[in-house]
Amino acid sequence: MTNAAVKLSPPGYEALTPQTAVQYAARIKKIADAIGGDPTRWTCDEVGDGNLNLVFIIRGASGAVVLKQALPYVRLVGESWPLPLYRAHYEHLALAEQYQHTPKIVPQTFHYDETMALTVMEYLTPHVILRKELIAGKRFPNLAAHLGHFLAQTLFFTSDLALTAEEKRNKMTPYLGNIAMCKITEDLIFDEPYFAAPMNKNTAGIDDLAKAFQQDTPLKLAAQEMKWRFLNAPEALCHGDLHTGSIMVTDTDMRVIDPEFAFYGPIGFDIGMLLANFVMAYFAQDAHEDRADYKEWILSTALATFETFISEFTQLWQSRAGEAYQSRVITAADSAAALDARMQQISSDVLGFCGVEIIRRILGLAHVADFESIADETKRAKCERKALLFARELLVNKAAYPTPKEFTALIKNQ
Amino acid sequence: MTNAAVKLSPPGYEALTPQTAVQYAARIKKIADAIGGDPTRWTCDEVGDGNLNLVFIIRGASGAVVLKQALPYVRLVGESWPLPLYRAHYEHLALAEQYQHTPKIVPQTFHYDETMALTVMEYLTPHVILRKELIAGKRFPNLAAHLGHFLAQTLFFTSDLALTAEEKRNKMTPYLGNIAMCKITEDLIFDEPYFAAPMNKNTAGIDDLAKAFQQDTPLKLAAQEMKWRFLNAPEALCHGDLHTGSIMVTDTDMRVIDPEFAFYGPIGFDIGMLLANFVMAYFAQDAHEDRADYKEWILSTALATFETFISEFTQLWQSRAGEAYQSRVITAADSAAALDARMQQISSDVLGFCGVEIIRRILGLAHVADFESIADETKRAKCERKALLFARELLVNKAAYPTPKEFTALIKNQ
Repeated sequence: MTNAAVKLSPPGYEALTPQTAVQYAARIKKIADAIGGDPTRWTCDEVGDGNLNLVFIIRGASGAVVLKQALPYVRLVGESWPLPLYRAHYEHLALAEQYQHTPKIVPQTFHYDETMALTVMEYLTPHVILRKELIAGKRFPNLAAHLGHFLAQTLFFTSDLALTAEEKRNKMTPYLGNIAMCKITEDLIFDEPYFAAPMNKNTAGIDDLAKAFQQDTPLKLAAQEMKWRFLNAPEALCHGDLHTGSIMVTDTDMRVIDPEFAFYGPIGFDIGMLLANFVMAYFAQDAHEDRADYKEWILSTALATFETFISEFTQLWQSRAGEAYQSRVITAADSAAALDARMQQISSDVLGFCGVEIIRRILGLAHVADFESIADETKRAKCERKALLFARELLVNKAAYPTPKEFTALIKNQ
Repeated sequence: MTNAAVKLSPPGYEALTPQTAVQYAARIKKIADAIGGDPTRWTCDEVGDGNLNLVFIIRGASGAVVLKQALPYVRLVGESWPLPLYRAHYEHLALAEQYQHTPKIVPQTFHYDETMALTVMEYLTPHVILRKELIAGKRFPNLAAHLGHFLAQTLFFTSDLALTAEEKRNKMTPYLGNIAMCKITEDLIFDEPYFAAPMNKNTAGIDDLAKAFQQDTPLKLAAQEMKWRFLNAPEALCHGDLHTGSIMVTDTDMRVIDPEFAFYGPIGFDIGMLLANFVMAYFAQDAHEDRADYKEWILSTALATFETFISEFTQLWQSRAGEAYQSRVITAADSAAALDARMQQISSDVLGFCGVEIIRRILGLAHVADFESIADETKRAKCERKALLFARELLVNKAAYPTPKEFTALIKNQ
């Protein structure tokens, strides 16, 4: 371990192995009972394929649990990039908050250990990571309805539309401590793709765009404007990392996991990030044969997610009882116009965050499997080029795409 | 005392009288030395003419100090409106922060007592409250330069333009506790003027506008948009109550006092509030004879304040070293355009907050002496009407007034 990583591990912290994970779980009666039977006969697999954590699945006689433990460094890069364990605390906070609003979508937590930076939670089965399924070409009929519901509920109920000013300030205050995770977003999403950052990488066939974007004043201004929004618009509790790798699905069910990047930010942030990942899945389909219909399904799912969010948020708006837009001021006669104005700002943010997410996934450090799994570099470059040009247009011409319909029309035009 | 007020007074708190204020000051050597001589020969006057506090001036053989103590209720209304003493803590925090950036403009603090909600600070002499001087028709040649400097320095250096994301979050976190003071702003500035709130009052001659504004959907939407900005844009440390009654002047000097409403908010907030108070002073001059030249001086001072802010902020922008608009991304070639874009948002906020401040000072609970001192109700109504129509236009047509020049032209057109 590097010195930095050592410093980040408090006394009592110890990264678990499958063996010590079983011993840990066995010591906590509630968890041991849930797994069931003799711990020496439990199985334990480490399945963490993300960038930051250990994830163990422990199976026993009567069930299974997931044990997720933060590592004091970025797994993707190694011990040279230390990352505070306290992110487990914010993940735990956010899981609890989101679970309140969407208990059918957020996994249930059984146990949290601050020192070990460890959460034991519901084992989701037969759920699989959505991104893999989108690459494989599978469809999920309820997906958009579930996602739109998650977004509307978690964003509305943590905002000034549902909370008093006091409740809102008290709720947001703890998240201001999630500094290291926000710093990753600040650097990797908003800054590094726009200069020759050492960790940037891109497919060879789009070198021209990578270079051009670094000289593109209107684009850089638009990206920095989104960074300013990220830093200065604590409207609601955002998941913070809502891509298709943070979503688990079955044919009928859908769960949102891994909110360790949770922060108070713009209502449009999670929506934009999520749509960006659908858009990349869409453009990546061109590398496969016979995927014209499936492309359409992805696009219609993105559109329906956005529209479900809007319609459910609109319904919730009618019941607003928070600090903002109080009905004593904004009466029935004003309500629709007020919602329109607010939705315009949300939509503008959605487009902006969608744009920067696409660009950083193609030109920055952390790429997505949708494109990376395209072995043919020429094909990959062609898909990525379309996505990049779409993202640039979104960012610099937000006002031209005021509703989800224009957004999807622009995608189809690429 | 009401039960609520009793609850808000912690053990050890006691509202001082001139006599006990002297006893308090005499017990603290540093302060006793500054006042000088035998405490039994000190004089003490309570001079608080604001709405919320006791203010004692204690004079002795070698000098004088100001002792400011918060009361656990709103002085203007009485003990029926309790208000937490903790506001003294935020005032103290803000004074210290502002003093760092503009030591010649913010009074020096000698002593702070959390339990007694009490600050002992520099006695400013021969300083007088600016609002009274504007009513009396006096000019202050350096005023705009000092005010523009205060605004540029305190706002820039507490924002993401000067601070790392971590420093900024750490600096803003404590202010999220100043809930009761923010609530006053939320209610009195953004909401109450726009419905028939029980504490509203207005000059009889403008009843028609008072009623019309409560039915004016575009205006109410614009005011609520500014409330959303107030709640959701922690860009910089704002004074929070920067009107001409929070400014003390001599012929050459200027000080900003009373930041107990301090909060992290939009960069345009303090600027807009301040300009609103100049604009009201301007319109109030019509009730006096022979004030045509003086009106022009007020307007030129408002304009010069705004322009000094812009030019000094522009200079500081070149030296930015914070989280936002880093020079590795926003290079010399992009810098001017990026500043323009940011300044556009700031200016839009300035106009919006200017508009709501004017409206609430004429139709809400807390009026300004500029208008209140006009005994002739017909004249007063005429002045207030012009101010109200100006404020409405600002709020609903912000985009038509992109620079200080259009702003002042609009004032002259009334």
